[in-house]
Amino acid sequence: MSLELTILGCHSATPRVNAHPTSQYLEINNRHFLIDCGEGTQRQMRKHKVGFSKINQIFISHLHGDHFFGLIGLISTFGILNREKELHIYGPKGLKQVTTLQLKVSKSYSKFEIIYHELISKESELIFEDDKVSVTTIPLNHRVYTNGFLFKEKTGQKKLHIENVQQYPEIETCDYHNIKAGKDYILESGEVVKNEELTLPPPKTKSYAFCSDTSYKEDIVPIIKNVDLLYHEATFLSDREDLAKKTKHSTAKQAAQIAALANVNQLIIGHYSSRYQNIELFKEEAAAIFENVILATEGKKVLI
Amino acid sequence: MSLELTILGCHSATPRVNAHPTSQYLEINNRHFLIDCGEGTQRQMRKHKVGFSKINQIFISHLHGDHFFGLIGLISTFGILNREKELHIYGPKGLKQVTTLQLKVSKSYSKFEIIYHELISKESELIFEDDKVSVTTIPLNHRVYTNGFLFKEKTGQKKLHIENVQQYPEIETCDYHNIKAGKDYILESGEVVKNEELTLPPPKTKSYAFCSDTSYKEDIVPIIKNVDLLYHEATFLSDREDLAKKTKHSTAKQAAQIAALANVNQLIIGHYSSRYQNIELFKEEAAAIFENVILATEGKKVLI
Repeated sequence: MSLELTILGCHSATPRVNAHPTSQYLEINNRHFLIDCGEGTQRQMRKHKVGFSKINQIFISHLHGDHFFGLIGLISTFGILNREKELHIYGPKGLKQVTTLQLKVSKSYSKFEIIYHELISKESELIFEDDKVSVTTIPLNHRVYTNGFLFKEKTGQKKLHIENVQQYPEIETCDYHNIKAGKDYILESGEVVKNEELTLPPPKTKSYAFCSDTSYKEDIVPIIKNVDLLYHEATFLSDREDLAKKTKHSTAKQAAQIAALANVNQLIIGHYSSRYQNIELFKEEAAAIFENVILATEGKKVLI
Repeated sequence: MSLELTILGCHSATPRVNAHPTSQYLEINNRHFLIDCGEGTQRQMRKHKVGFSKINQIFISHLHGDHFFGLIGLISTFGILNREKELHIYGPKGLKQVTTLQLKVSKSYSKFEIIYHELISKESELIFEDDKVSVTTIPLNHRVYTNGFLFKEKTGQKKLHIENVQQYPEIETCDYHNIKAGKDYILESGEVVKNEELTLPPPKTKSYAFCSDTSYKEDIVPIIKNVDLLYHEATFLSDREDLAKKTKHSTAKQAAQIAALANVNQLIIGHYSSRYQNIELFKEEAAAIFENVILATEGKKVLI
């Protein structure tokens, strides 16, 4: 089980030459998700070797341009690449209408189906689930309806305690499936070997919480409690806390406070305002509150 | 009077790391126009030092994504930059609806007004005119409704033939305006000095024709006759003339044929298909028909 996050863009507002708006690529337990899709995301995907065909789910936090203006171009490129697989898009109500209209005026009729999962709830809800991963919304507080997303690996199967298993020659390979699924083993003698003796616990599951854009919001703490990795926006430093409040963004300090309250393992911050030249200051400010913090930079990969 | 074209993007279809879709910046007689606006155009504008505030007119040839998906991001950035001036957008019907919807869902309410000039005519028409420049459509033949654009400097004022003027001491500086406007000068003696004696002809006007995307279309020749610079798309080489015909694009040879028929001074080609690794082949193919040809490359400036 593994979790790897790739930062495709981590700056706020307008795209600049070396500062792309928000987009992230998440590989979690062999699932491949795109999170937010600012203008230029498809270019950043190519630059950082993200396979277009792997992505079947796209999660859009909110409908500010720096988080979704790249979506139509990516969808269009999927069509040009002759995609046939369904594409699932999760995001605020309105996304379907705007995307559909753009495809209509550009007469882009693709072979693949787009399935929209439009979000309206203000409560945290399960929006994706399969046998490997679940995705839950994290309601945020921004100028428009916004969700973060919590990605969690599901508990896998137990592992065989192979040394103990080998103590019982009559247990054969074909029995392993049942044992890993949690069943006890009954020997020919009738003796019951408890499953706990034959197995080790499954690997620890990993989790990732993406929170952008939002003002400081303690309500999210219970949802993101103990995650392995938290991305929390930090648009400003504390010198602009007033501006953060006004624009419903967070400071680096506030991001760190949320990380500390939620007892996460690691914090990654981004969405820096272009008014700051030196993003190291964001790390300094956050690290004073929460030590295990890193800065999002384009192309950075975080492996858990 | 001067004309300078800057290529911001010159590749077809999907954006790649070093291959941006169509966009051009034209400075003509102190007017500043943006022509087409594929995804990533605003990034390319920053990279190539195009001043955002200079642009008051944007011309969109057609509604395929590689020619307009960057428009909404640019408009949005104009808003973030606190633009207050009107913005005029010329392009096919549908552009207003799609842009307005995107601004609405992203709650981007800007201080500046956007004035849409939606085009529906299949005949060449004058769509912009002031005292310096005129812009006329060039109806093209593509899979969707498409126009090229002809940009022409207007004839300026005559120049003073200063040596001749100085032969008449009674002509004063305050008379120059009328003389440059074409009036004869009447001496105190009643003698008429003909305007031709006092002036030189105005500088030669410059013109630029932008033609993308289109199949080979000889009808456009009369419209673009004798222009100083012609951009004509060349998506394919002649080895794929069948594909050019099917997709309503042109080959490098066909672009050169149009340039030759129209007796233009210089041809610039672009919109290369990604299937070709070596774009020099486009130049070779075109030059066999029309010698004064150059290749569009990102950041290239052509000064007339």
